[in-house]
Amino acid sequence: MTFFDSDYMEGAHPEVMRQLMATNLEHIVGYGKDHYCDEARDLIRKACNAPDALVHFLVGGTQTNVTVIDGLLRRHEGVLCADTAHINVHESGAVEHSGHKVLTLPAHNGKLEPQEVDNYITDFYRDETFEHCVAPGMVYITQPTEYGTLYSKAELTEMSNVCHKHNIPLYLDGARLGYALASPDCDFTLPDIADLCDVFYIGGTKCGLMFGEAVVAKRKERLPHFFPLVKQHGALFAKGRILGIQFKTLFTDNLYVNICKKPVSLAIKLRNAFTAKGYKVAIDSPTNQQFFVLPNDVIDRLKQSASFELWGPRGEKETTVRFVCSWATEEKDVDELIERL
Amino acid sequence: MTFFDSDYMEGAHPEVMRQLMATNLEHIVGYGKDHYCDEARDLIRKACNAPDALVHFLVGGTQTNVTVIDGLLRRHEGVLCADTAHINVHESGAVEHSGHKVLTLPAHNGKLEPQEVDNYITDFYRDETFEHCVAPGMVYITQPTEYGTLYSKAELTEMSNVCHKHNIPLYLDGARLGYALASPDCDFTLPDIADLCDVFYIGGTKCGLMFGEAVVAKRKERLPHFFPLVKQHGALFAKGRILGIQFKTLFTDNLYVNICKKPVSLAIKLRNAFTAKGYKVAIDSPTNQQFFVLPNDVIDRLKQSASFELWGPRGEKETTVRFVCSWATEEKDVDELIERL
Amino acid sequence: MTFFDSDYMEGAHPEVMRQLMATNLEHIVGYGKDHYCDEARDLIRKACNAPDALVHFLVGGTQTNVTVIDGLLRRHEGVLCADTAHINVHESGAVEHSGHKVLTLPAHNGKLEPQEVDNYITDFYRDETFEHCVAPGMVYITQPTEYGTLYSKAELTEMSNVCHKHNIPLYLDGARLGYALASPDCDFTLPDIADLCDVFYIGGTKCGLMFGEAVVAKRKERLPHFFPLVKQHGALFAKGRILGIQFKTLFTDNLYVNICKKPVSLAIKLRNAFTAKGYKVAIDSPTNQQFFVLPNDVIDRLKQSASFELWGPRGEKETTVRFVCSWATEEKDVDELIERL
Amino acid sequence: MTFFDSDYMEGAHPEVMRQLMATNLEHIVGYGKDHYCDEARDLIRKACNAPDALVHFLVGGTQTNVTVIDGLLRRHEGVLCADTAHINVHESGAVEHSGHKVLTLPAHNGKLEPQEVDNYITDFYRDETFEHCVAPGMVYITQPTEYGTLYSKAELTEMSNVCHKHNIPLYLDGARLGYALASPDCDFTLPDIADLCDVFYIGGTKCGLMFGEAVVAKRKERLPHFFPLVKQHGALFAKGRILGIQFKTLFTDNLYVNICKKPVSLAIKLRNAFTAKGYKVAIDSPTNQQFFVLPNDVIDRLKQSASFELWGPRGEKETTVRFVCSWATEEKDVDELIERL
Repeated sequence: MTFFDSDYMEGAHPEVMRQLMATNLEHIVGYGKDHYCDEARDLIRKACNAPDALVHFLVGGTQTNVTVIDGLLRRHEGVLCADTAHINVHESGAVEHSGHKVLTLPAHNGKLEPQEVDNYITDFYRDETFEHCVAPGMVYITQPTEYGTLYSKAELTEMSNVCHKHNIPLYLDGARLGYALASPDCDFTLPDIADLCDVFYIGGTKCGLMFGEAVVAKRKERLPHFFPLVKQHGALFAKGRILGIQFKTLFTDNLYVNICKKPVSLAIKLRNAFTAKGYKVAIDSPTNQQFFVLPNDVIDRLKQSASFELWGPRGEKETTVRFVCSWATEEKDVDELIERL
Repeated sequence: MTFFDSDYMEGAHPEVMRQLMATNLEHIVGYGKDHYCDEARDLIRKACNAPDALVHFLVGGTQTNVTVIDGLLRRHEGVLCADTAHINVHESGAVEHSGHKVLTLPAHNGKLEPQEVDNYITDFYRDETFEHCVAPGMVYITQPTEYGTLYSKAELTEMSNVCHKHNIPLYLDGARLGYALASPDCDFTLPDIADLCDVFYIGGTKCGLMFGEAVVAKRKERLPHFFPLVKQHGALFAKGRILGIQFKTLFTDNLYVNICKKPVSLAIKLRNAFTAKGYKVAIDSPTNQQFFVLPNDVIDRLKQSASFELWGPRGEKETTVRFVCSWATEEKDVDELIERL
Repeated sequence: MTFFDSDYMEGAHPEVMRQLMATNLEHIVGYGKDHYCDEARDLIRKACNAPDALVHFLVGGTQTNVTVIDGLLRRHEGVLCADTAHINVHESGAVEHSGHKVLTLPAHNGKLEPQEVDNYITDFYRDETFEHCVAPGMVYITQPTEYGTLYSKAELTEMSNVCHKHNIPLYLDGARLGYALASPDCDFTLPDIADLCDVFYIGGTKCGLMFGEAVVAKRKERLPHFFPLVKQHGALFAKGRILGIQFKTLFTDNLYVNICKKPVSLAIKLRNAFTAKGYKVAIDSPTNQQFFVLPNDVIDRLKQSASFELWGPRGEKETTVRFVCSWATEEKDVDELIERL
Repeated sequence: MTFFDSDYMEGAHPEVMRQLMATNLEHIVGYGKDHYCDEARDLIRKACNAPDALVHFLVGGTQTNVTVIDGLLRRHEGVLCADTAHINVHESGAVEHSGHKVLTLPAHNGKLEPQEVDNYITDFYRDETFEHCVAPGMVYITQPTEYGTLYSKAELTEMSNVCHKHNIPLYLDGARLGYALASPDCDFTLPDIADLCDVFYIGGTKCGLMFGEAVVAKRKERLPHFFPLVKQHGALFAKGRILGIQFKTLFTDNLYVNICKKPVSLAIKLRNAFTAKGYKVAIDSPTNQQFFVLPNDVIDRLKQSASFELWGPRGEKETTVRFVCSWATEEKDVDELIERL
């Protein structure tokens, strides 16, 4: 069998495990107040060219999104995002559980269109009854998106300008940010992200760590009292050093981006093979996730030797499917799958 | 000036005021545990042909929706409704403030399509990742809708069947239910509503009362512990007798429906006049609210002698507007407006 | 029968009803944007000597408390109050429903002790683990308290100083504020309250209105975006004019304080009669509520001709009871009760 | 330096690390649907003598408490616990963030008294105004308590009986359950716990794991739809296998209890040494946490070579301190500390 279900099917990158083993018996204080966390924070600040940024480590993506969004919004405000956004579709209503509405605009290849965001906010305040409606209090984007697509630097800049024109923060969900930075289509840097977004997070769970997401806020006044908020959301990790050690390793020698390069190139190889065989690409992705619309019989045949996910309910004749590569995917797995096509 | 802004521009129907005056100095216990509330509850049960129904009086529509929805849903569930639904658009995120997601389907003339609801729920559980998504835990409809349109008895029956097939409750927001019952297009009765919907509310604020909404649940096991829930939502009215006396009056001699007849016929007269002049009807409504798409200069001219609302932000050349009649609207007001056209 | 259950057993003061009747058929826009509300706001600002204060009208006490508290606190903060506070005991967890913890200190005759508040906050930040605890983000007091007692001007000043020293707002629940202002023990004015408290509310429901509470904030920057917050809490009243007209009447010719004088003096007469007969006063109150500890047989005897509440569960031999006078209580009722003693 | 700050100062027990390493590169589906989780669940069910129990793995204690409590309570209900309970004091208001009030009774050596719980609930429903108050919907206890003390089997049985008499669930927070089971004073078994408590959790973070808590519910109908609730609370761990492998290791060959024996005996040795020197024991604990009241100069002296926590703010002359032993504490550390005394 080969495995393309997701990019969180293995433990951690071997180097990360090595560091966890090496430090396992050290006695270290909890809750992220240890020197490993401090070192990891400094490495991330350096990588972001943001020496004063707030950096905080959390465990998983949903809890990170909810905690940051709750920290950024005032009570009467909602978060504006694409209708395909993870927070809108796949987080079991976690944002609403914290009391905030998710406001949606149609996705274009998984992305929000800055001009549509601008129009939405402008129209919102032009409606005489706007005080009866949920004010858009921030913008949420994912990079890469849930469909593997990328915002270009120009698009990010435009989105950032729209947000700041309307005086609301821009938040970027970087659950798979490493695959964006490792994409051949990437025309931005981590410092660009840190500069254009008020808050973002660097995803570790899907990019080499056992678990862990690093919230970064260059404008740290956007997230005052973040520590008790994290605790209140049940998101404070007792043995903070485990997060610190992992992120320290990931941001040493650029491991973060380096380990994401191969999965991206393998995913593109896969896409090219599928399109060469005449299969439909659902969305054109330059990162480690690929989406195809396949006839059901092809799906059934491939499933005999490869594991991958249906994207939504099975259709009558054909269904959208997702193939994902990770740092642990090997070229021979991809070749074997292509062979079976 | 004539006034068509809304159906809550006056105090209360004179008969209601008379009863409030007559009972004003009586000493009566609070919180709805008085004999006026009991009498009102019995009159409503009789009108609904539901002798054992739970009947509870609240103050306003948003608080009623939020409290009922919070009572009907389990924590992980959301409420399914049309994207034009009041709870989705005009309640400042009150449902989300209580922790529940509002799930939407496209409105058809302001209405949910039962077949689309059926498909949505069926597809939801066919998705392998459904446990990561918000489960549709109830259906919310308005009768008449926010656009004045009506569900027929057949449509209500189909919606009720769809809900019960999937074992979730149907809730009907009857903020303007009187105007539905008074419409020439009405083919259902109050007992039909009580039978087909697990919970609904009879709107008083917009149909003759100073304020007040009556929640009715024939299947009262759907709303256990409703009293403390009402209190928790800040929706428990201290001088419950004020609600009891008002509703008692409204359900004596069928005052509720009787006072809604004139405004409906005046609204239809208005619509006919507008269409006769060649103006576009935005949505074809058989009740007391009428929506037109008017050129901006016509709007500006009419505004000099009549008060009414723009429905959404002002367009470049034309804008949707709303005209509303109430029990207090007089025929001469309508005639004067028509004259000015 | 005579009635001492509560101060919300009648409709509204006759003058209030007269104004509601007189204006009943006027066509007026909703949601508090009308001239009656404007006039009422100005009268209240004048009475408070706070010409720029935010004044907002809500329906009931619990919803007012919850909405204001939610507006004043940041997400990770709680509200500090006496353990006997209404928000802690009798609001069905409404504050917690909005996500905030109620932090309590022991009541002294129903009151918080400023020095204990100071110590609590100081100790809180001296605890090394304070970020794992709920930060006291505001102080809540009631005037008069739930037990009818009063904070003196000196105590209010000290409490205000403690709060501002720690940079948190002081909020005063004035559900029965009229009875405080009408008490012979009152040594403060409404402008004092407005000056010392960041936010407070003037209770109408228990002081002559059918319903209604007026939130007043001299430091209005403490409650930004209050309108959508009110809506989100289901607390926005459609026919705002009903609130405006009532409060305009109440603040014309000092009606508010004037109608509270008699009930206070009758309540004190009652207390004196009880103590003269040798019955125990539970708490020494100078306002319209009186609490006695009575033998159960005396309670049973009095209950035959007078209606009043047990304060907590019935004891084995004796039970605390509450007698309340309102503007509608007549001297002969009190005399009759005293007679029966 | 020696370290007695907490029982979460190291990574994981070496055997746990060994298993994580050995399985690190296996490709395994996420979210706890893998065979390691299944095996761990079965081992726990066996250890609990509860073959049909629901077993669900979460990351940390606060998120486990909040998610379980939210699953057990209806909206209008609160959770009853000791005033010293972790959920009341050290979870930043996480329970209230989910909308529920924490109801407290005075702790006796960190424990709730079953008879006081019985009285509280009985009195609650005897109060005529109980529907305005927060109903006690469950009981929360910790074993061992936050102060290291233990409920005996008889006390647990009585508490269970009280809860079930009132038809509410009993929930046990077992963050340090291993140290209870390893205590010389322990007179109960894991099957006893599973039998007497409707839901409990077996703490891994403080008992040998890198992180992880296992929720166990013999009466699994108490927690319907637990999976989406976990997701909604941001508590669903992507690489569930990490939890499964850890708990599988912990419940193989009784590792869980075995590794807790030494820290308990070392802690008791410490207590005996302190009392032998005449120092005050704050609370008499038979488990791995020990609390002493020490003169401040003694604290300062010990701090030069040992790390431990002040328990609350520093007093003027003396302060309560906590010393904690874990599976990683060595006898020579304890001896060295005793030497320094």
